[in-house]
Amino acid sequence: MAQKYVTREEDYSKWYNELVYRADLAEHSDVRGCMVIKPYGYAIWEKMRDILDVKFKETGHSNAYFPLFIPKSYLSKEASHVEGFAKECAVVTHYRLKNAEDGSGVIVDPDSKLEEELIVRPTSETIIWNSYKNWIQSYRDLPILINQWANVVRWEMKTRLFLRTTEFLWQEGHTAHATKQEAIAEAELMLNVYEDFAENYMSMPVIKGRKTANERFAGAEDTLCIESMMQDGKALQAGTSHFLGQNFAKAFEVKFADKEGKLDYVWATSWGVSTRLMGALIMTHSDDEGLVLPPALAPIQVVAVPIYRTDEELAAISAKMAELAAKLKAKGISFKYDDDENRRPGWKFAEYESKGVPVRVAMGPRDLENGKAEIARRDNKTKEVIDFDGLENYIEQLLADIQSNLLQRAKTFRAENTREIDSYEEFKQEIDKGGFFLAHWDGTPETEERIKEETKATIRCIPLDRKEETGVCMVTGNPSAGRVIFAKAY
Amino acid sequence: MAQKYVTREEDYSKWYNELVYRADLAEHSDVRGCMVIKPYGYAIWEKMRDILDVKFKETGHSNAYFPLFIPKSYLSKEASHVEGFAKECAVVTHYRLKNAEDGSGVIVDPDSKLEEELIVRPTSETIIWNSYKNWIQSYRDLPILINQWANVVRWEMKTRLFLRTTEFLWQEGHTAHATKQEAIAEAELMLNVYEDFAENYMSMPVIKGRKTANERFAGAEDTLCIESMMQDGKALQAGTSHFLGQNFAKAFEVKFADKEGKLDYVWATSWGVSTRLMGALIMTHSDDEGLVLPPALAPIQVVAVPIYRTDEELAAISAKMAELAAKLKAKGISFKYDDDENRRPGWKFAEYESKGVPVRVAMGPRDLENGKAEIARRDNKTKEVIDFDGLENYIEQLLADIQSNLLQRAKTFRAENTREIDSYEEFKQEIDKGGFFLAHWDGTPETEERIKEETKATIRCIPLDRKEETGVCMVTGNPSAGRVIFAKAY
Repeated sequence: MAQKYVTREEDYSKWYNELVYRADLAEHSDVRGCMVIKPYGYAIWEKMRDILDVKFKETGHSNAYFPLFIPKSYLSKEASHVEGFAKECAVVTHYRLKNAEDGSGVIVDPDSKLEEELIVRPTSETIIWNSYKNWIQSYRDLPILINQWANVVRWEMKTRLFLRTTEFLWQEGHTAHATKQEAIAEAELMLNVYEDFAENYMSMPVIKGRKTANERFAGAEDTLCIESMMQDGKALQAGTSHFLGQNFAKAFEVKFADKEGKLDYVWATSWGVSTRLMGALIMTHSDDEGLVLPPALAPIQVVAVPIYRTDEELAAISAKMAELAAKLKAKGISFKYDDDENRRPGWKFAEYESKGVPVRVAMGPRDLENGKAEIARRDNKTKEVIDFDGLENYIEQLLADIQSNLLQRAKTFRAENTREIDSYEEFKQEIDKGGFFLAHWDGTPETEERIKEETKATIRCIPLDRKEETGVCMVTGNPSAGRVIFAKAY
Repeated sequence: MAQKYVTREEDYSKWYNELVYRADLAEHSDVRGCMVIKPYGYAIWEKMRDILDVKFKETGHSNAYFPLFIPKSYLSKEASHVEGFAKECAVVTHYRLKNAEDGSGVIVDPDSKLEEELIVRPTSETIIWNSYKNWIQSYRDLPILINQWANVVRWEMKTRLFLRTTEFLWQEGHTAHATKQEAIAEAELMLNVYEDFAENYMSMPVIKGRKTANERFAGAEDTLCIESMMQDGKALQAGTSHFLGQNFAKAFEVKFADKEGKLDYVWATSWGVSTRLMGALIMTHSDDEGLVLPPALAPIQVVAVPIYRTDEELAAISAKMAELAAKLKAKGISFKYDDDENRRPGWKFAEYESKGVPVRVAMGPRDLENGKAEIARRDNKTKEVIDFDGLENYIEQLLADIQSNLLQRAKTFRAENTREIDSYEEFKQEIDKGGFFLAHWDGTPETEERIKEETKATIRCIPLDRKEETGVCMVTGNPSAGRVIFAKAY
């Protein structure tokens, strides 16, 4: 008897939590706010990482690794950075345990107190710029284009698997440049890399935009972002790329000599995406039956299940499936043949459905006789009976179709849930229904703050490609230079 | 004027430290004992990781990710484990900073004290077995074959880049099995994977062996290891694979039901290699001119330098090099063409020599005229002038030759520095000269301890393939079942 799961309609939040367990992606650990990423979930993250890593290298970046620990005083060096990050962090104060004298276990050895506490990195600008200081003397040392894949810790009070966890995995790019223009171009370039990844691999449409001053990264002069819409109409910030100006260079005294020997502070960017993308992926595509994966990120792209009564039937089907496996392998398509005798086909169908395997092949004795196989696609749950001859080509095309169908479907959903709005009264009534609201705003932090307090909606971004249109702020009636996107967000 | 570096002969330890900086592999950070792995060093580590990762997957393992933090009480659950690891660890006691009232910066918020301290993982057996407890009910859930790539922290008092750092990168495999035999076979299998990697990719010969009880991993029933010899004759433990028996299953109450429904504790292994391998790689092959890399791990396998006076000459050479680049790329050989105008060929030669690039191609106007190029190999520093036609095939073969020559050279060195010894007096005289000493030992921890105290030499391992030979302990004269390897070690 299959377990009954809650639907998106009934309880979206619970549906999400159940799905993460059901698809065996991750689970809560006993350590507050920290998750265990299980093999199937990690395999998806590995695919994300490997694809992004190639893109980072193609755009000239190298990987490196900086310390997990940051001396407490470093955080204070950049004024707004410490405000943003010092509040929620894990603090290492001692470096040794010892046996309790009463034999009750181990205790912290008070003699091992550190002179200066160490912070487990919430982000690495400070420790990295402290290194760059020694690496940069002249324009010849620039640009520095480095990325780091790492774990980071931000002490979150309310956590959700993948979306907000105390420890998470991410990549953080940290670049140093001789000119402002070059740094800005770098921040834009990496935003485009993120957009490409989101749309063409995750099949997740995103809006490229700029954060308001309120929502900027602590220490940035400009924060660019990609914003996506989840199926409940809430927004999710999927990646950010920051132009840091000379803030960190000034905080860590990093100057370079230009060709004329003139000294100036170095220009910086940083940019990152994290395991949060797993949450975005899940909430963009999945349905009440479980995970739905775009083929480009599916650890198993095609699963095949034999349907048989006798050993002879199984042997004949298995021989056909071995043929198919070889042909798919030659095309670089990952394939799993599940002939586990202890599970019935129905159980397997449900299992691979909940795990989001894009294409399922089933073959029974009659299919075998007719030279056919039943092909089910996960995205729209349609089935077709297809000639076994040339099936590998059909599947290859089908995977491409699924990849683009998922993107198209998500784009349609977003379009249907995006509207222009001009009345604040109406906005207040409509905002709880979810979706993106394009509204005029007077550009002040005060108005932004008021809207947030009254509606819990935030300005997700000022879209980079917004329509040229002047108007009046829906709240204050003051002039506005264009519409911004309001939404409730994860 | 080139900087003068110390030679191995003059000061081996200083030579190593200088080399790590000179080849731009890593540097000390301002955080005590923590290193920054620089892009060139990280690129080598990435190659190691990627090769090992394929081997782990080929042997049926999946990657996953477990929390960085371990509740203090977990460490105490396995009695010998806590003895081994609790002494040297980073302890998180608080989760928030706040602004100091006197405006002097940030201080630890005393209100944020954790009820139970968290330990930054020194190794993950405890946190992982705490998860496995929930994953394993029956034999159908077994085996679990998981690996994790992660950072770990052990508070080291005396640190050296790559060899011993407070934070380091590693992989740790953690497997769970239904039978003792299966777990032992797994530990042996992974030792063989490590041996294959060391010998065929690092070109570093290793001796597979078993640790004595004294040197076993804290919590293991049996520790297998690969031991290598550095150029100063000291031993380096390059990887370990542990049969953990049922120790962690008992500590975390992990039982499974077998086919008959009978409950038993689960059998376990764990196995790991770390960024320490970088140190081993450096000290196995490098020379007084800098790093020497086996081609399988070289981020740049071939570098080409043009030698020219006029722009026409440069253009003609560059055209030839573009041809070569395409042909090498087709063979999967990584190639860099350095036509930087700001550096002279001599500077470049020294630069790539110190970075260990296996093959250097130089081409000047006369070479061009004669249809030749000068090929220099890094391992033995010989040069030859070779026909440009078919050069890609010559280089391909040369890389294979370098790979095997490095292994052969290291094997010869090890053989020349390994000897049987039967007199403890002689042993005490000879041990400071370095090398492996095959000696009889009576099998007691007391004798082992005495030798260590008197000579600083340890038993590196009991070789798995040791000669069948009974004898008498060189110290006590008591019976011995065979020779073991003594050496001073990193």
